[in-house]
Amino acid sequence: MKLTSKNLSERTDTLYDAIIAGGGAGGLSAAIYLARYGLKCLVVEKGKGRSFWMQELRNYFGVDPTVPGRELQKHGMETALSWGADYLRAFVEDVTDRSDHLEVKVKVGKENSIYPVFKAKYLIAATGIIDILPKLENMQNVYDYAGFTLHVCMICDGFDMWDQKAILIVQKESQIEAAFVLSWFTPYITVLTHGLCEVSDAMKQKLKDHGYPLIETPIAQFLGENHHLQGVEFTDGTKIECTTGLINMGSIYHNHYLKGIPELTWEGENLVTDEFCQTTHPRIFAIGDLKKGVNQVSIAVADGTLAATKIWRIIRRSSSPRKWVEQLTA
Amino acid sequence: MKLTSKNLSERTDTLYDAIIAGGGAGGLSAAIYLARYGLKCLVVEKGKGRSFWMQELRNYFGVDPTVPGRELQKHGMETALSWGADYLRAFVEDVTDRSDHLEVKVKVGKENSIYPVFKAKYLIAATGIIDILPKLENMQNVYDYAGFTLHVCMICDGFDMWDQKAILIVQKESQIEAAFVLSWFTPYITVLTHGLCEVSDAMKQKLKDHGYPLIETPIAQFLGENHHLQGVEFTDGTKIECTTGLINMGSIYHNHYLKGIPELTWEGENLVTDEFCQTTHPRIFAIGDLKKGVNQVSIAVADGTLAATKIWRIIRRSSSPRKWVEQLTA
Repeated sequence: MKLTSKNLSERTDTLYDAIIAGGGAGGLSAAIYLARYGLKCLVVEKGKGRSFWMQELRNYFGVDPTVPGRELQKHGMETALSWGADYLRAFVEDVTDRSDHLEVKVKVGKENSIYPVFKAKYLIAATGIIDILPKLENMQNVYDYAGFTLHVCMICDGFDMWDQKAILIVQKESQIEAAFVLSWFTPYITVLTHGLCEVSDAMKQKLKDHGYPLIETPIAQFLGENHHLQGVEFTDGTKIECTTGLINMGSIYHNHYLKGIPELTWEGENLVTDEFCQTTHPRIFAIGDLKKGVNQVSIAVADGTLAATKIWRIIRRSSSPRKWVEQLTA
Repeated sequence: MKLTSKNLSERTDTLYDAIIAGGGAGGLSAAIYLARYGLKCLVVEKGKGRSFWMQELRNYFGVDPTVPGRELQKHGMETALSWGADYLRAFVEDVTDRSDHLEVKVKVGKENSIYPVFKAKYLIAATGIIDILPKLENMQNVYDYAGFTLHVCMICDGFDMWDQKAILIVQKESQIEAAFVLSWFTPYITVLTHGLCEVSDAMKQKLKDHGYPLIETPIAQFLGENHHLQGVEFTDGTKIECTTGLINMGSIYHNHYLKGIPELTWEGENLVTDEFCQTTHPRIFAIGDLKKGVNQVSIAVADGTLAATKIWRIIRRSSSPRKWVEQLTA
């Protein structure tokens, strides 16, 4: 059922089989599977994650390429609820290991917040990442293009940049390397640092050898209309033309609530997991963009399947098969 | 484009980047990704695989639980075609390793068949499995229930059997072990061997201890109406009541065309692969039910993503980044 600040006290005494931090594609897939295994689960979703921002999902088998991420999320939430999962709009604050179970403290409500604690045998960390966007004075100008013609994922949207004039926006020199991959889709690349980093002479030479201009002046605004990029204006008043772009400024990982668990193994900000997405803490699974691997909706959805299936196997194997005789005499 | 016996000669000189054997969920996911990476690919689909028979797909994030597999397949095929993939209705007969590429011989047409050969740098084996069904004189009687209330996958459909009177149909004693897993969903299990195997005294005792009746008489027919199972009649004229069931008689693997490739590593009939679904033959990938792992649509779809992405990386890294300068002076 859908939990709110009004009814959630009905569930704070429940020992959930699993709490899922994050209601994106991975978390909701896990919830659908857990619920259909007959396990008690709660999805905690803060809202506005990466899949919420996806305007179109071009690569996911079975779904029309024009369906936006937020619609898929809503559909998945309703499916999970219909099979018996619980769902709460809240922010996961902290996880405490109580040895035979985990305590998950969440923040409900932006104002007059309350901080209930839920209990679970297992946690599925599915809180993912969010892409860093260039900071402009008028952020609405960024949102008008980001996710439309100014992309954040080359695997998802490289195809839609084919042989177009493209910008590549970075904030570190190492991120410029993406230009030499993006060139698979288009060679007409201008690299923008937005004034955020120094670029070495070696990289400048490499860009020059490939014919990719480098502009280190900060961006003033994106130009275009109806989400269709037409160019960029810089703070010195100069302009360039472009019809598409890739933002490659890194990601913010939503993983703060796991940093107090010493048994976890990290590779950078990603969690290391086994083939069933189980971390090195036996009660914690990590799926989707939070774990090491390819950041794609299809992968997150499969991860949810795997984590839920492993949790079901562990719980099922710790109980005896139900007998027909017992049921009849009960 | 859609190939037929009339136009396929336009493609027999093409060196495809990848040929995908099998147009189920995994194969079509791979085709969608490959096409969007700008790679040339051909899907060869024989028709009527496992996902074609799925009446409802209850666990796949983003798709209504009532959507049948054949509708998803059609949708995926149209999406792949729209991004530029080729598609041919045919049966993969044989694969020959020509060292720098593979030759894939297919059979087109059930009558007056032709046997064209296509060439590809990589092969994605996505031909999956098909469930063995009990053989009755009137097979239509089996098809009337199989995939509706007589299931073939416990992970997919255990939830829909909850606490119902269920039959478990096996053809080997070892397959009876599924009863002690199925009991998670319902303890009211009757095991049917359809007269196909001997059952040891130890197993008989174990079933007795759990209160699960064992019937070794062959099935005469399934009883019920509108795909809703109501019972089973046996060849000796006896009947039992049941409202659901699980067929656990094993699977037929569509992998004959790979048996001549000595570099492949098998575990039973499954191919062993790495984390990108690459087999131990560097030009051959295996995805979905054909590879070792959990047999679920979500997994096959992710496998397609991984195999296609790895093939793109290999091909991309073997070519130099495109230069803007070259393009301008070309």
